[in-house]
Amino acid sequence: MKDFDKIFTQITEETEKSINELFLPIPPLSIYEPFHYAITAGGKRIRPFLTLIAAGAISGKPYLAMDAAIAIEVLHNFTLVHDDIMDESPFRRGKPTVYKKWNEPVAILTGDVMVGWAYKLLNNYSSHPRYAEIIKSFTDGLIEVCEGQAYDMDFNTMQDVSEEDYINMIDKKTAKILQTCSILGGLVGDCSNDELKALSDYAYNLGIAFQLQDDLLDISAEQEKLGKKIGQDILEGKKTFLIINAKLKATEPEDVKLIEEFYQNHGLSEDYIPSMRHVFRKYGILEQTAQKAEDYLQLAIKSLSGIKEGLYKDLLIRLIEKMNKRNY
Amino acid sequence: MKDFDKIFTQITEETEKSINELFLPIPPLSIYEPFHYAITAGGKRIRPFLTLIAAGAISGKPYLAMDAAIAIEVLHNFTLVHDDIMDESPFRRGKPTVYKKWNEPVAILTGDVMVGWAYKLLNNYSSHPRYAEIIKSFTDGLIEVCEGQAYDMDFNTMQDVSEEDYINMIDKKTAKILQTCSILGGLVGDCSNDELKALSDYAYNLGIAFQLQDDLLDISAEQEKLGKKIGQDILEGKKTFLIINAKLKATEPEDVKLIEEFYQNHGLSEDYIPSMRHVFRKYGILEQTAQKAEDYLQLAIKSLSGIKEGLYKDLLIRLIEKMNKRNY
Repeated sequence: MKDFDKIFTQITEETEKSINELFLPIPPLSIYEPFHYAITAGGKRIRPFLTLIAAGAISGKPYLAMDAAIAIEVLHNFTLVHDDIMDESPFRRGKPTVYKKWNEPVAILTGDVMVGWAYKLLNNYSSHPRYAEIIKSFTDGLIEVCEGQAYDMDFNTMQDVSEEDYINMIDKKTAKILQTCSILGGLVGDCSNDELKALSDYAYNLGIAFQLQDDLLDISAEQEKLGKKIGQDILEGKKTFLIINAKLKATEPEDVKLIEEFYQNHGLSEDYIPSMRHVFRKYGILEQTAQKAEDYLQLAIKSLSGIKEGLYKDLLIRLIEKMNKRNY
Repeated sequence: MKDFDKIFTQITEETEKSINELFLPIPPLSIYEPFHYAITAGGKRIRPFLTLIAAGAISGKPYLAMDAAIAIEVLHNFTLVHDDIMDESPFRRGKPTVYKKWNEPVAILTGDVMVGWAYKLLNNYSSHPRYAEIIKSFTDGLIEVCEGQAYDMDFNTMQDVSEEDYINMIDKKTAKILQTCSILGGLVGDCSNDELKALSDYAYNLGIAFQLQDDLLDISAEQEKLGKKIGQDILEGKKTFLIINAKLKATEPEDVKLIEEFYQNHGLSEDYIPSMRHVFRKYGILEQTAQKAEDYLQLAIKSLSGIKEGLYKDLLIRLIEKMNKRNY
């Protein structure tokens, strides 16, 4: 695991270097200052890392995919800049969000121009034999991330969300952008169709597991490690994997009533978080979610069977393990 | 001119037909209903028309460029959906704007997904020999339209905007998208470099003339024909070609004072519109602006010298004449 951390750090430093060289606060400053602010604000750079090691797994040359890796990181940050307006989030990574530090028009326009720059980076592959597929996959990613956010918004007002609806939503909202990473990395590495499917399935399963873990951490993490309030999803009325399954399983009247209140009032106040946690424990929802996440992680490993052995395949597997080490 | 109107109507009907077939209110409805609403809300479809006749001028086959034409119309409508939030505009084309009919999150996300669909339409050229150039030109258009909007916002707080700054801003904000139309049309028609430059220069000059005329119409049009309030730019404190030149030319103290008040208060109240119109008349600003617009239209015609004679070149010239028939 130490090797992994070392390589992760090394690749991430290369990514940071490229980001710092590419995005300078040029005129018009009203959009390029916030663009620079958003893209250099940190973040784990998981998406560029995945893109680069996917390219490495196919071609042995991860850095050929740097422009694609950064294009996706820009796409990801574009969604954050716009989501923060929609969710009225004042802080991200401990700093004011773009719309709070500047204003809404600036944040809207900054996000918009970021999409343009993501595609501009992909221009650098215009002589690549897989160029059209690169553009198509990136565009599919952009559309599905927006659709995922739309489904997520719609869930707020829906009384009935099935587990299938939920998995479909997190597929688009969370897994799709990871899939775009692995697909673009694979395409830059000029992968075969089987390799493309392997990388795509891997990232899909990883993404779903990641979101399930996120749902679980919201209620079961230690406060200090989470970096946000425990039970935020319950406060906000989010229809997570936990609440959907609690609704299916709860039988005792007071538990049914609590869940009904959650649905009718689009969330519960802070006082009810311990009761809701109690309900989750009582019906085995925490274990069920952890198991479901574990199942997807196993599928992610299995997906990689068609990828040739070597350092970068190891890194893809270690990335799964690293994510599985999250505390809950 | 009658022929032009007939062909314009015919081409526009084809465009409407394609738009109606392409964009249905599919799930997730929270974004695709407003998308459908925005893209079918009318508008003159000047941009698709220009794209199609540019392709026609090169290849004789205008409809090969239909997907590109609609991609640009979608891009244009994306900017309108987002601009209406930024400008807090309640109505467009006589109907509530997307953010008013739904809400801001919906309007932000709808605009975002529209960008994705514009690129998705361009996927249909992935086997075209000029595909990479098509994507690159479209991306440049997206970035520059955002930059133009940013400069326009910045001008609101700037005390000094030069004529050069202004032309640069309207180049990006208005002319660039028309240039993208003519360039994409030309590329789909597989044009030569000289033809590409001719089409690009043509649309640049047309775009600048169009914006100068718009500035002029704001103060000199007949109320009924304009479809919005006379003097809106003065109310909003827009640094137009007229005000920039009035500032340079005004010598009498009360005129200088009025213009200074406009700059300091970021606009003037309705009562002052007649005084400002008087200032524009007194220093010959209206004639100067009309002449400048006319100069650019002449340049637009001249730009076409390298385009071969025929129906579609005639239409490009007639489009200039049609725009020059606007009343002021």
